[in-house]
Amino acid sequence: MDFTELLKRRTIRFFEQRPVSRELLDRMLEAAALAPSAANRQPLRYMVVETAETVLRLLRVSKYGGYVAPERIPEAGKTGPMAFIALYAKAEELQSTLYADAGAAVMSMEFSAWENGLGCCWVGAFDKTAAKRILNLPEGDEVLFLLALGYPAEHPQVERIDEQESIRYYLDDAKELHVPKHKVSAIAKYC
Amino acid sequence: MDFTELLKRRTIRFFEQRPVSRELLDRMLEAAALAPSAANRQPLRYMVVETAETVLRLLRVSKYGGYVAPERIPEAGKTGPMAFIALYAKAEELQSTLYADAGAAVMSMEFSAWENGLGCCWVGAFDKTAAKRILNLPEGDEVLFLLALGYPAEHPQVERIDEQESIRYYLDDAKELHVPKHKVSAIAKYC
Repeated sequence: MDFTELLKRRTIRFFEQRPVSRELLDRMLEAAALAPSAANRQPLRYMVVETAETVLRLLRVSKYGGYVAPERIPEAGKTGPMAFIALYAKAEELQSTLYADAGAAVMSMEFSAWENGLGCCWVGAFDKTAAKRILNLPEGDEVLFLLALGYPAEHPQVERIDEQESIRYYLDDAKELHVPKHKVSAIAKYC
Repeated sequence: MDFTELLKRRTIRFFEQRPVSRELLDRMLEAAALAPSAANRQPLRYMVVETAETVLRLLRVSKYGGYVAPERIPEAGKTGPMAFIALYAKAEELQSTLYADAGAAVMSMEFSAWENGLGCCWVGAFDKTAAKRILNLPEGDEVLFLLALGYPAEHPQVERIDEQESIRYYLDDAKELHVPKHKVSAIAKYC
C-alpha cells in the first residue's frame, strides 16, 4: 500500500469482533520501535492487551468519541476493540519530548495497522490510575496513551475545511462518521 | 513505496544541495493536515522556509546531532538542509496533547518525505525566541519544532539493540552513521 493510501487512515471507534493476529501486533510494535525519539533515548514502553477481560476493563476506564457520544461509544462484544496497546514510561520521563515521541510512535503504529486492514483509536482521555492498576505497572511508571485497535466496522469520511469552520466530527443521517480536517491552505504558509 | 520501505526512514543531517519542489513540500503539509489530533482540534500551524538566507538563520540557532558533533553538524551551502518546516501554535495550546499532535504530524511528514526521496531531521533543540523572531511570528505564538529537510547526502544504518545497550548513535571509521534502535523484545510485552 503506498503512502497516498495510508493517508486515507482515519480513527476507528467501532470494530469487527474477530481477533487480531500476533503477527500484525508485532508489526505495529516494530513500527513503534523504529520511530524517531528525542536524542534517540527511546524511553517509551509498550504493553499489549489481548484478553477479552482486560480489554473490557480498559474500555470501561476510557472515554472517547466526545462529539459523537453516545452513538460511537464502543460496546464490548459488539463493537469494542479487540486489543489495546498501552504506551507507558518512567514517571520522571514525563515531559514534552516524551509526548512528542509518543505521537510519532502512535502515528507509525497507526500506519502499520492501516496497511494490514486494521484501524485504531488513539485514546488520551482515560483514568490513568485505573489503567496503571489494570496493567499491573510498578509504582514508578505512568501510562501516557492507549491505542484501541481491531478490524474496522465503520468507514469514516474526511471533509476538508477552511480555518474558521467547525472541527467537530459528526454522524450523518445514515450514522456514517464525517471528520473535518483543515485544508493545507488553512494551516500552512510559505515565508 | 510500501510501509516496510517507509520504515527504513532514518534521521538525515547531511543534505544534497539541490532544491526541493513546492509539490513535495505541499505533499508533506498534506500528510501533516491529515494526522490525528486530540479531540480533532488541530491547533498546529506550519511555516515553510525555503529561502537560503532564512534557512541559514534557522540553522544557526539550531543544535543537532548531539552524539556525533561536530562531524555531523551541517554546513550551509555544503551539507545544510534546503528547507525547514516550523511547527507552531498559540502559546495557550502548549500542553502534552499538543506535543503528541506534533509528534504524529512530524512522523506523517517524515514518511511523506521519505516516499519521495527526501530525508528530514526533527529538531527540538533550538533557540525558540530567536526562531520566533526569524519566522516573524506574532507575540502569542510559540515554535514547537523545526523539521530540516532535503535530499539525503548520508545513509544512516539502523542497529537493533537489547534494553541495556547504548542508544548513542555513532560514526564508524568510514564516517557512516549507525543508529541503535531497541528490538521489540526490549520495549514491549504482552499481558
